[in-house]
Amino acid sequence: MTEPDETPDSTDSSSTADSSESNTCGEFTVTPYAVEGEVDYDKLLERFGADPLTDEQIARFPDHPLLRRRTFYAGRDVDRYLEAAASGDPHALVTGRGPSGPMHLGHVLPLYLAKRLQEATGATVYVPLSDDEKFLAKDQSFASIGAHTRENLRDILAVGFDPERTRIVVDTADADVLYPIAVRLATHLTPATVEAVYGQQDTVGLQFYPAVQATHLLLPQLVAGRQPTLVPIAVDQDPHVRVCRDVAAKEALPVGKPGALLGRFLPGLDGPGKMSSSGDAPSIELTADPDTVAETIRTHAYTGGQATLKGHREHGGDPTVDVPFQYLRFFFEDDDERLEQIADDYRSGELLSGELKQIAIDRITEFLTGHQQRRAELGSLEADLEPYRLTDRERRRALERAGVPAGLESEGDPRR
Amino acid sequence: MTEPDETPDSTDSSSTADSSESNTCGEFTVTPYAVEGEVDYDKLLERFGADPLTDEQIARFPDHPLLRRRTFYAGRDVDRYLEAAASGDPHALVTGRGPSGPMHLGHVLPLYLAKRLQEATGATVYVPLSDDEKFLAKDQSFASIGAHTRENLRDILAVGFDPERTRIVVDTADADVLYPIAVRLATHLTPATVEAVYGQQDTVGLQFYPAVQATHLLLPQLVAGRQPTLVPIAVDQDPHVRVCRDVAAKEALPVGKPGALLGRFLPGLDGPGKMSSSGDAPSIELTADPDTVAETIRTHAYTGGQATLKGHREHGGDPTVDVPFQYLRFFFEDDDERLEQIADDYRSGELLSGELKQIAIDRITEFLTGHQQRRAELGSLEADLEPYRLTDRERRRALERAGVPAGLESEGDPRR
Repeated sequence: MTEPDETPDSTDSSSTADSSESNTCGEFTVTPYAVEGEVDYDKLLERFGADPLTDEQIARFPDHPLLRRRTFYAGRDVDRYLEAAASGDPHALVTGRGPSGPMHLGHVLPLYLAKRLQEATGATVYVPLSDDEKFLAKDQSFASIGAHTRENLRDILAVGFDPERTRIVVDTADADVLYPIAVRLATHLTPATVEAVYGQQDTVGLQFYPAVQATHLLLPQLVAGRQPTLVPIAVDQDPHVRVCRDVAAKEALPVGKPGALLGRFLPGLDGPGKMSSSGDAPSIELTADPDTVAETIRTHAYTGGQATLKGHREHGGDPTVDVPFQYLRFFFEDDDERLEQIADDYRSGELLSGELKQIAIDRITEFLTGHQQRRAELGSLEADLEPYRLTDRERRRALERAGVPAGLESEGDPRR
Repeated sequence: MTEPDETPDSTDSSSTADSSESNTCGEFTVTPYAVEGEVDYDKLLERFGADPLTDEQIARFPDHPLLRRRTFYAGRDVDRYLEAAASGDPHALVTGRGPSGPMHLGHVLPLYLAKRLQEATGATVYVPLSDDEKFLAKDQSFASIGAHTRENLRDILAVGFDPERTRIVVDTADADVLYPIAVRLATHLTPATVEAVYGQQDTVGLQFYPAVQATHLLLPQLVAGRQPTLVPIAVDQDPHVRVCRDVAAKEALPVGKPGALLGRFLPGLDGPGKMSSSGDAPSIELTADPDTVAETIRTHAYTGGQATLKGHREHGGDPTVDVPFQYLRFFFEDDDERLEQIADDYRSGELLSGELKQIAIDRITEFLTGHQQRRAELGSLEADLEPYRLTDRERRRALERAGVPAGLESEGDPRR
């Protein structure tokens, strides 16, 4: 097993000598809309008030490299979820997607983690797509966001979730259930709260959006009752969870506050500490063909190797900053011994950067081939999506549990 | 015909000697959420920048006491509507309802005006019910708002609109079409704009609501294309229209800015210059039985009569402040000669306040009997409402025209 000091973030530890308690000072900025500078993941936890995952908690999760190697490294209310999973009681995950562009490797990892947890303990998985937020936040037409939404949906379907235990919602397409609940939750969200968490917003649409996001995170228990919920997300999205937890505390809900499983960013190809979607280096899209994957990694991946062959053979490479190694470590090399061997060979100088790149290329291509094959087997998006959509009964139950009877429905109305 | 100087507001003219140009100073406050003090309707127009209706415009409208006697006394872009109506081209009205309680006489008058215009020139009538806003603005549960919504819908159906030319939408129940369009329009609404018009809002829900309201007012042209639209509303709701007009100016729409037909408030029973829904005196609900109507008017209606019978016979009454007379004048006595005779008899002292009250009781009871009879003939709310709801095709067209393709629908998707 790789040591903690081999994680990409741990190389930043020298810069955290100042473990200031202050929440306001800091050399990096993490909000849902901006990730700047080198990220200190420990300082983030301190700032956000979340708890590092304990060894015991990691052990209680189904085995998965993203957990075993602490890419997901912290959380909130994780035990409640783990207890339900252990007892065979209902439990749920919410892992969303903002459809502002094609999905790339970094976006799909939490989905494959969710699939693993679903297979292992029967977790219900909710996948909300926030096309409304992306339209409001980005300079794109709804037509463009809609096209990305449809492509993203194909990638989400290609993950291969169990339709019996998975619900995919799209904010505009499922507004019939999401908007009324968001209105209810919005009564707990003052403009000051939203501004404190997200900063000043350009439009009243973005001001309202946290109520929609809160709806996403409460959906499992609203749809299906008692379901301790865990939200596996990149740590920069934690403010969404905190806002929802504050809102949930003001409502009588089957479970209450959703939990969180907070993760590190998959490093961008141009190096660790940068979020792949906001960096300048190209990302590897899920639809990339093998040649593109190879070419992209060979050309753009930041390595921990030495400048010359001679130097590399002499001094060895540094896997902790080597992006191809980190991709293997995050997800693509499941075998710990094999990963450790790669790290050792790299450190010793036996394994060259180009060879390490090739290993990553092979593993990623292997993964993408499977993903793309499942994607290619999909038929009409609508038909394939249908079994994953909320049923009329589930919509009605969610509105009822939220105390939002649709205006037209009298109690006991038989229509839906 | 009654003279303009007999309108209830004209008695305030002495207080408007100060025709200050300032928009910020004034002895009364009119926003969508508060009406305080005596309302100076002329000063309101000046402040809002709307135009008084000309005699020629009044003459081009189908004849109706609410227009003929200038209860609706001002507007924006009225000519465009009138031209379409005169040419037999499509034209539309939007007249909404905030379902926070039972509907009373003041609420239903614009609906009956809309019905008259629909019968005369074939206007399409849209009736949006803002249950979301009322939940956000008032201290009521959604269950309570939902119950009022259903009762209000019965009253709206009892008006007897032509289902072919009428669409009733409920914000929570029609969120599938309203929310995505509101998101689009929200991109033009900054928090500062909303705060400038509505004041500081308590929740992000109310901050977002103007985008939903703008959606209501643009719905006719979004659903059906070129439809010059007029919004007959009490003048205190004009800020909604202005916000929507500013938003509409930023979109490519079949018609563009909606027009407005601005009205005075039906005086509360306790006297003119107060809005019936915010005063302390009881209002006459549409479901009130004849005894209740009679008792309420006899007990609570403010009269313009003298304190003693002798004084009344000697000096006569003042119809301009007499609420029963004003009710007749607004709506319930259509015949101008008869109304003038009543005013003359009251001024001369021949007609006593109690007798004038009885005339109003008779007319209002007559009106309510018809309304209540149509209401009683309704069957299941859902079945009766169905022909008035947006069809799937209309929903799709509205989303398309707003440039908001539902995320799940590809172009040419045959489903809806």
